[in-house]
Amino acid sequence: MSGNSFGTLFRVTTWGESHGPGIGVVVDGCLPGLNLDEAVIQSILDQRKPGGSSASTRRKEPDKAVILSGVFEGKTTGTPIAILIANTDADSRSYAPYAELYRPGHGDITYQSKYGIRDWRGGGRASARETAARVAAGAVAGLILNQAGIQVVSYTLELGGVRAGVTDLSQIHQNPFRCPDKDAARAMADRVELVRKQGNSIGGIVEIRVIGAPAGLGEPVFDKLDADLAKALMSIGAVKGVEIGDGFAAACRLGSENNDPITPDGFSSNHAGGILAGISNGDEIRIRVAVKPIPSISMDQQTINSHNEPVTISIKGRHDISAIPRINPVCEAMVKLVLADHLLRHKALL
Amino acid sequence: MSGNSFGTLFRVTTWGESHGPGIGVVVDGCLPGLNLDEAVIQSILDQRKPGGSSASTRRKEPDKAVILSGVFEGKTTGTPIAILIANTDADSRSYAPYAELYRPGHGDITYQSKYGIRDWRGGGRASARETAARVAAGAVAGLILNQAGIQVVSYTLELGGVRAGVTDLSQIHQNPFRCPDKDAARAMADRVELVRKQGNSIGGIVEIRVIGAPAGLGEPVFDKLDADLAKALMSIGAVKGVEIGDGFAAACRLGSENNDPITPDGFSSNHAGGILAGISNGDEIRIRVAVKPIPSISMDQQTINSHNEPVTISIKGRHDISAIPRINPVCEAMVKLVLADHLLRHKALL
Amino acid sequence: MSGNSFGTLFRVTTWGESHGPGIGVVVDGCLPGLNLDEAVIQSILDQRKPGGSSASTRRKEPDKAVILSGVFEGKTTGTPIAILIANTDADSRSYAPYAELYRPGHGDITYQSKYGIRDWRGGGRASARETAARVAAGAVAGLILNQAGIQVVSYTLELGGVRAGVTDLSQIHQNPFRCPDKDAARAMADRVELVRKQGNSIGGIVEIRVIGAPAGLGEPVFDKLDADLAKALMSIGAVKGVEIGDGFAAACRLGSENNDPITPDGFSSNHAGGILAGISNGDEIRIRVAVKPIPSISMDQQTINSHNEPVTISIKGRHDISAIPRINPVCEAMVKLVLADHLLRHKALL
Amino acid sequence: MSGNSFGTLFRVTTWGESHGPGIGVVVDGCLPGLNLDEAVIQSILDQRKPGGSSASTRRKEPDKAVILSGVFEGKTTGTPIAILIANTDADSRSYAPYAELYRPGHGDITYQSKYGIRDWRGGGRASARETAARVAAGAVAGLILNQAGIQVVSYTLELGGVRAGVTDLSQIHQNPFRCPDKDAARAMADRVELVRKQGNSIGGIVEIRVIGAPAGLGEPVFDKLDADLAKALMSIGAVKGVEIGDGFAAACRLGSENNDPITPDGFSSNHAGGILAGISNGDEIRIRVAVKPIPSISMDQQTINSHNEPVTISIKGRHDISAIPRINPVCEAMVKLVLADHLLRHKALL
Repeated sequence: MSGNSFGTLFRVTTWGESHGPGIGVVVDGCLPGLNLDEAVIQSILDQRKPGGSSASTRRKEPDKAVILSGVFEGKTTGTPIAILIANTDADSRSYAPYAELYRPGHGDITYQSKYGIRDWRGGGRASARETAARVAAGAVAGLILNQAGIQVVSYTLELGGVRAGVTDLSQIHQNPFRCPDKDAARAMADRVELVRKQGNSIGGIVEIRVIGAPAGLGEPVFDKLDADLAKALMSIGAVKGVEIGDGFAAACRLGSENNDPITPDGFSSNHAGGILAGISNGDEIRIRVAVKPIPSISMDQQTINSHNEPVTISIKGRHDISAIPRINPVCEAMVKLVLADHLLRHKALL
Repeated sequence: MSGNSFGTLFRVTTWGESHGPGIGVVVDGCLPGLNLDEAVIQSILDQRKPGGSSASTRRKEPDKAVILSGVFEGKTTGTPIAILIANTDADSRSYAPYAELYRPGHGDITYQSKYGIRDWRGGGRASARETAARVAAGAVAGLILNQAGIQVVSYTLELGGVRAGVTDLSQIHQNPFRCPDKDAARAMADRVELVRKQGNSIGGIVEIRVIGAPAGLGEPVFDKLDADLAKALMSIGAVKGVEIGDGFAAACRLGSENNDPITPDGFSSNHAGGILAGISNGDEIRIRVAVKPIPSISMDQQTINSHNEPVTISIKGRHDISAIPRINPVCEAMVKLVLADHLLRHKALL
Repeated sequence: MSGNSFGTLFRVTTWGESHGPGIGVVVDGCLPGLNLDEAVIQSILDQRKPGGSSASTRRKEPDKAVILSGVFEGKTTGTPIAILIANTDADSRSYAPYAELYRPGHGDITYQSKYGIRDWRGGGRASARETAARVAAGAVAGLILNQAGIQVVSYTLELGGVRAGVTDLSQIHQNPFRCPDKDAARAMADRVELVRKQGNSIGGIVEIRVIGAPAGLGEPVFDKLDADLAKALMSIGAVKGVEIGDGFAAACRLGSENNDPITPDGFSSNHAGGILAGISNGDEIRIRVAVKPIPSISMDQQTINSHNEPVTISIKGRHDISAIPRINPVCEAMVKLVLADHLLRHKALL
Repeated sequence: MSGNSFGTLFRVTTWGESHGPGIGVVVDGCLPGLNLDEAVIQSILDQRKPGGSSASTRRKEPDKAVILSGVFEGKTTGTPIAILIANTDADSRSYAPYAELYRPGHGDITYQSKYGIRDWRGGGRASARETAARVAAGAVAGLILNQAGIQVVSYTLELGGVRAGVTDLSQIHQNPFRCPDKDAARAMADRVELVRKQGNSIGGIVEIRVIGAPAGLGEPVFDKLDADLAKALMSIGAVKGVEIGDGFAAACRLGSENNDPITPDGFSSNHAGGILAGISNGDEIRIRVAVKPIPSISMDQQTINSHNEPVTISIKGRHDISAIPRINPVCEAMVKLVLADHLLRHKALL
């Protein structure tokens, strides 16, 4: 119970179901005096909007964020910022057949077993739609990061087995997959097309970089920066793995290869991903997350209904082929929430 | 600040430096009426003791746990359980040369930049020795898991590039590397010997399984079971990556391959690793963590001193070649802490 | 920062300013499966509505609660319940003169000094209007208490120096002051009339009783039941004192008078107010709170403006003469929030 | 469960029973670089020592505080500070008769009903001895307050019905009752003598003042400064009431009397007790707490045993006649913990 808040000083609480009246977030602990209006939030929220790439659903949610509190004459006041995103295109009729079925790979069966009741319309609380509230909150966190000169960038490193060969950050908004390699982006398009025809889905890998984070962020031994980042990112529905720096690749390295030598001008490599002993070291923070394939596929699958009888299911609705690229702004948002919180926690120490 | 507690209802707070008077933990929120004495803790703590394998330091710490509160006539009382482990073999003289140096790959430089002061003896608070307190706390958490019929097993899946080919759980206490494959264990021994001669170090991969966890554990959307597991494990110093179920391998699968079909008798596969939408589904929970090579190596490394001057460092002390196998009980402990906390949180809902 | 949440397992987060778009609350941690619709909340919220007694403002806010999440087909689902109360009659023009003034006894000056900015319209976040969100949350908490057979009753023990001589609970909804003594209620009416003519205001004492609370609630040594009740009630703007049981009267008693003898049939007196060592003892819980006079008075007062110049102020708006009786449902709500949270925390232990 | 921690950024966790091996506290979130040694803690802890006044027990506990972590070369390091106070004079034999009895006014019966087990020796966890850990933690908090120029003073305003007529702070360490009125102190001595002969006990009122607190401390709407102070003080075993500023006296005042006029030079009165809308206003903070009579009296009392049979009890051990004056440093400590935490929380906002 009570698992819908995140953060210590910069704390967000999200609420809402996919097909209820709306979703939203309360951001408690934002610094006062920052410029904030709905357009700031909207511009970031729009990056998560469906329809941007061929991998995305055609559901048309305007996802319009409305600020209900905490802002006065265009500035934050230090009081809680409530943001509401109404659900306008929630067509629950198409979900009616699933009221009594558990979709494989979804939370239907676990929500039912945990709570004994569930809002089955569109996945209810477990819907990816919930992440829109995170993105809105991340936009507010971004104000604090901007002030501190910190930038968070996220991109698609791999999609459906197609991996970016180069990392050209200038490319990531030039193609529909948020891929830093334009050739790979083309291959991703082909891959998506193929999978869509099969009625199947694909996963991938997202990489997030934090540029400009000062040394000193992170609160050992449990609220380490990497620990909080791992929690933040793993709390996104589709994420099944998190790596910091070289991550799993470090497991087969020698110490002499993996240690980052220190010079008077800084570290001469960055295998650590910018975090040492749970505290940022001033270098770029690098994180990778594994994104599983979207579980909703139109191919036949075996499942059970609420009477524990076997049934075959084929999910026809308006679904993404992959959580990528739309998951990118969600990852960015979660990283921003962690950094804003840790900036404030560290500030209390100075 | 205040990052040394973990958990909501079953909450632990650790303290202590490598070479101070001792380390310890306060366990707040243990159920009353459970049988607990120091032997229960000691038997688990002994698994973390150095000297068990050729990969470990020869520092001889008896690591004797003393219970200072919360137990009366052999039973827990529901009040905080304080456990103290005195530091007896702390030879800080060997660390004196490092008082003014920042060891690469260690927290020396980040602690210094965060706090402006650090106890440089043996890594101070950032020492792996801190994890003994976690293991002691995990032993207490284990009492709650036992009562619920839950078992946590951890083993070495890979060490220095040598991977277990089979997973025979009966093997893991039959070899010094906690490896479930006896042939691989022999290859690991060779690998360790080679690396030791080079004055180098290696990492690896640890796999943790939770057997018997009921469906329903986890508190979406932020305190999801996998999110809390990721934080718990990433908060261990040497861990650089965490995967749930298939983890990064899921990123290149199709949805039809990755979804676990549901049958009247349960799931027919377990790619999800026992967690759906952040809630346990009753299946075995599977987690893997990437362990980086121990940063202390006797080979020459480039670093700076506290005057920002370049220096060459070679670390001669009594160090492990790898955090593996000793990190296994630490991983088990962190998983137990998460499960005990979530069992209690879920119980409040029933 | 981040002080707008309350509770551990049953946790509420409020937001909103007096003259912004609205106020609201997110209730995280409600048990699933409870019957809840807007009418349940509205009926309790209406008790806080202005206009009920001669001591209240004539501002007409319909205070209509809308449930935005967490309820499906009339039942709670265990997910966060967001409740929105729109501000419809917020006439901020009448506050314009106070934009540059600090009203004595109000938070104007402290919000300004803390945040460097404030929404001055109607007191902004510090407005008593914020308590409507607490009352709505308390209505949800009430569902959990109902299930446990617990009842919370609050009444006006004293108003403007007029004290109830008898405590006839059947009377409290029979007079506009929520007074358990109908003769005292008449004297209160006279007192209010006199004070209103003077353009002044009055305070009083509210008593809250909890009937049916089981023994065992409270989490020593800091989250004792009385400690959490004290915090909950003192967090209401107008409250300046909290007593449990005999409270300050106990300070001049002998131990032999103050101890409650224990018999096989229970305690033979209740000086303790139902709480011993921070844990409920099964007896009726009794709490009293001191309510200060409303600071907004039309009499001339001395203050300063934002340029630190002395000015005379006379507040003409639509204000209550006393926070009583409207504060009664707010006190009830805060007590309910504490009890629901402690019921769940205690349940985790059983 | 898990109620043994207090604070958000400056967070303390206490543990220990009256007759176990010892008691202690972990202070997490202390600023680094502050001068701290055991003498600093001891000098404050000694103020709580029994034997100081005729109202106190003759149990001779040296109450020697030992620092186990978080301090290096005489300075705090920002890591958790563990403090241990061993129990040396714990004579539990005298408590043996009470193993099966519930002492009236004590937590025996509520601990038993909550946990189903209790350490009955000397009150176990519910013993006032637990407060020594709070005092030790308060000494650490004091370092942060010193740095900010904040002073906390506590004194006995009333004892056994004898009230201080004047408040001469220079007197409070000149008499054994910590009374700011030397004539009243003499009358208190007489009162104590009389009550002791009767085998009875008395309560009183303690007043705490905070001098030098800056404006801006407190985090509305729940973590208001007065709300957290109320919780902190009400969490002390013997406290049954808390007032801020005029407290209950404000309940019968007019608004025109109770509002503190604001002038260019500050407030011209301080009925509010230095807190407006939950935020400190820069004026002196004034708090009063009601202390109940010690429940252990040698006079015959009626109670039950664990078989629910009526018995007569007379408590002969070494007990205080009153929690006053020893409760004074405990009140000071709790106020310091709140202020240190709020100083840090507010600092994060600046």
